[in-house]
Amino acid sequence: MNTSVPVYDITVGQFITTLTALKDVLRKGKEFAEAKKIDMSVLLQTRLVPDQFPLSRQIQIATDTAKGCVGRLINEDIPVFEDTEQTYEQFVQRIDKTITFLQKFKPEQFKDYEKAIYASKHKPGMKLGGKSFLVQYAIPNFYFHVTTAYTILRVSGVTIGKGDFLGKINWTTE
Amino acid sequence: MNTSVPVYDITVGQFITTLTALKDVLRKGKEFAEAKKIDMSVLLQTRLVPDQFPLSRQIQIATDTAKGCVGRLINEDIPVFEDTEQTYEQFVQRIDKTITFLQKFKPEQFKDYEKAIYASKHKPGMKLGGKSFLVQYAIPNFYFHVTTAYTILRVSGVTIGKGDFLGKINWTTE
Repeated sequence: MNTSVPVYDITVGQFITTLTALKDVLRKGKEFAEAKKIDMSVLLQTRLVPDQFPLSRQIQIATDTAKGCVGRLINEDIPVFEDTEQTYEQFVQRIDKTITFLQKFKPEQFKDYEKAIYASKHKPGMKLGGKSFLVQYAIPNFYFHVTTAYTILRVSGVTIGKGDFLGKINWTTE
Repeated sequence: MNTSVPVYDITVGQFITTLTALKDVLRKGKEFAEAKKIDMSVLLQTRLVPDQFPLSRQIQIATDTAKGCVGRLINEDIPVFEDTEQTYEQFVQRIDKTITFLQKFKPEQFKDYEKAIYASKHKPGMKLGGKSFLVQYAIPNFYFHVTTAYTILRVSGVTIGKGDFLGKINWTTE
């Protein structure tokens, strides 16, 4: 009897799957830009509405959310990325650095995740315990920004579908 | 020492939070439509791109994903909704019926979730075990469709921000 799921699986494991999928989505964006003779920076600066972040920032926040979530729950230093990426290659590199960071950890390192405290950057004095931070904040935020990155490219004309967003799924025939 | 999170929390608990947030987002859409003298059905039929589902279908899939996920993992009959909603009130009712279904369950009822089998509707013969279904399929799909519903309204001009998507978070000052 087991009514729980390893934090490792829903963070490290699935963040790597989704970030790898995001890299594939970006590659399709790059190929689309090349075929249309558009500079990739145009897509990276595309926004769905003027007061929402462009694709570039969506990628930055998605990676920040992934490394921030795991680093906080494991109580490990979170690598700081300078948010200076401009090119496709630099954004791919940012995702790769995030994946490399995530790959360092093992399931048992989440043993004290419930004791972690997240202090809000936007709401001074407001805090979340580790479980609430994971369930109510980090995971929804992560998917929100990856979905938005995907949608910006989808609306821009890149031929992608939900399967590209979901990435590699462990289908079996058994 | 605990390295896991209850399936109940990341499904029932968080689906209810996010679906409640989706209702608030839709209400803001309704108020926007009224202020602009637009029929709400226009927003419900709005798509970001011609070959993506409109807002109405995003709500249907989000609710289907939530009830399908929990019903399958608990091995309980999943209520079928007929996908005939047309009005704002009917979509709110669909979300409410989904929440009522989710509220029936208790954390211990997920005891055999790992033994659940999900058979793909789109990939004949392909299956997922309970944990893969939960982590790789149901959760990403749920947030994908709620985010897309949100984004359709955001792009349509409704004044909403990420806080509206996240909904009620258990912030504390301790």
